[in-house]
Amino acid sequence: MAERPMDKTDDSFIKESHIEGRNPVIEALRSGKPIDKLYIQDGVNDGPMMTIKREAKKRDIYVKYVPKDRLDHMSQTGMHQGVIAACAAYEYSELEDIFRLAESKGEDPFVYILDGIEDPHNLGAIIRTANLSGAHGVIIAKDRAAGLTATVARTSAGALNYTPVVRVTNIAKTIEELKTKGLWFICADMDGTLMYDIDMTGPVGLVIGNEGTGVGRLVKSKCDHIASIPMAGDIDSLNASVAAGVMGYEIVRQRLAVKKA
Amino acid sequence: MAERPMDKTDDSFIKESHIEGRNPVIEALRSGKPIDKLYIQDGVNDGPMMTIKREAKKRDIYVKYVPKDRLDHMSQTGMHQGVIAACAAYEYSELEDIFRLAESKGEDPFVYILDGIEDPHNLGAIIRTANLSGAHGVIIAKDRAAGLTATVARTSAGALNYTPVVRVTNIAKTIEELKTKGLWFICADMDGTLMYDIDMTGPVGLVIGNEGTGVGRLVKSKCDHIASIPMAGDIDSLNASVAAGVMGYEIVRQRLAVKKA
Repeated sequence: MAERPMDKTDDSFIKESHIEGRNPVIEALRSGKPIDKLYIQDGVNDGPMMTIKREAKKRDIYVKYVPKDRLDHMSQTGMHQGVIAACAAYEYSELEDIFRLAESKGEDPFVYILDGIEDPHNLGAIIRTANLSGAHGVIIAKDRAAGLTATVARTSAGALNYTPVVRVTNIAKTIEELKTKGLWFICADMDGTLMYDIDMTGPVGLVIGNEGTGVGRLVKSKCDHIASIPMAGDIDSLNASVAAGVMGYEIVRQRLAVKKA
Repeated sequence: MAERPMDKTDDSFIKESHIEGRNPVIEALRSGKPIDKLYIQDGVNDGPMMTIKREAKKRDIYVKYVPKDRLDHMSQTGMHQGVIAACAAYEYSELEDIFRLAESKGEDPFVYILDGIEDPHNLGAIIRTANLSGAHGVIIAKDRAAGLTATVARTSAGALNYTPVVRVTNIAKTIEELKTKGLWFICADMDGTLMYDIDMTGPVGLVIGNEGTGVGRLVKSKCDHIASIPMAGDIDSLNASVAAGVMGYEIVRQRLAVKKA
């Protein structure tokens, strides 16, 4: 968090930068670097450029075809070789940042832990919910999960500027680590105890699973409680970001009730 | 609801049908009929076809260009004139269907009223939430709002098969009408009473506003209560479908508490 500006100016946070030239762009695409838009010179279709187009398509990155003049004008190096990638570098935070934020507010830590959310719209909406429900951070997995792309930033509606997002290699191990710091873990799943009957106050981690497959078995086994949202209807489950909101706000309700009492 | 199949097979509900020929397709496009995809013959660019392409673009309908052979093969009438529209006819219900459903379950009516939700993903997610939170229907506006497109059906995760969706011309007038049937109206907005402090049991309509502008002034003035979700964070508001879920489930919680008591 040290280098993350905590003011309201989105632009200071989104350090727009350019990557120019074929190999640097291919490398950036393959490394999963968040790329906002690709500018490609009209009519250039050689091997490396086809690779770039293919990788861009795979990652669903918007490509804009422009004349060489335009690229020449945009170029900061004079070496664009027909392609410029506009990047938005969203920085991940560290676990300590979450605890520091909770401490600075004098609150028990409250964290959302996402075990494989794949849809960037869901990730963005959950970061937004985390911010408004007073959570101190969001933890996501490095593998098979959406990262902090431009879409996530947009759907987070600015929350990415305030709520630390930490990316970890192993969610189960991270839960173990956070338990030593006094957190309880509540996993949202269908076969659990009705959420109203679980005490969710105190330092808490709320674990939300993948859109299709839910929370993984190992991660689930590390949790202290399995909590269920009451389901009155005919279909299987809520949208992942709605479920995160409903359960996150049950935590808010219980915390407010404790404060009042 | 009479003609809506209540079983689990999506296909029986989505009556896939084709509209063939230029004028019928133009008419379907202009009437706002839900169209899944347009098949247009490669290289045909005359006046009526350009009109079709323009209308399709306006409504963000996916166009697939295919050779004449393919259209000949798809055609059911032999009169495709270079264009076939694949429709998914989602039927809207009537207000009576909502009351009939509540009555058949022996429950107080519970309705979501959407005052201008524009994003089909939000609409689909809210219909999904409405189903699972035990609501008996969703009311949407005819104008400036998403209708029941294929995207909405998909994001509703099957809920469209069970939860009646009624489209009305005037939300404010509909609220007046439903008040005569004993419903109370709760409007979700930021300047209201904390939702935990409002009695949301009994026959209730939950009004959710537009993603950007919230609930309209006239509609708001018709509501009995303005209810607010507690906001602890730095940004303005939750995603519309998350807000609908959080407040919808506060109604669920209060209803369950009454049952228990």
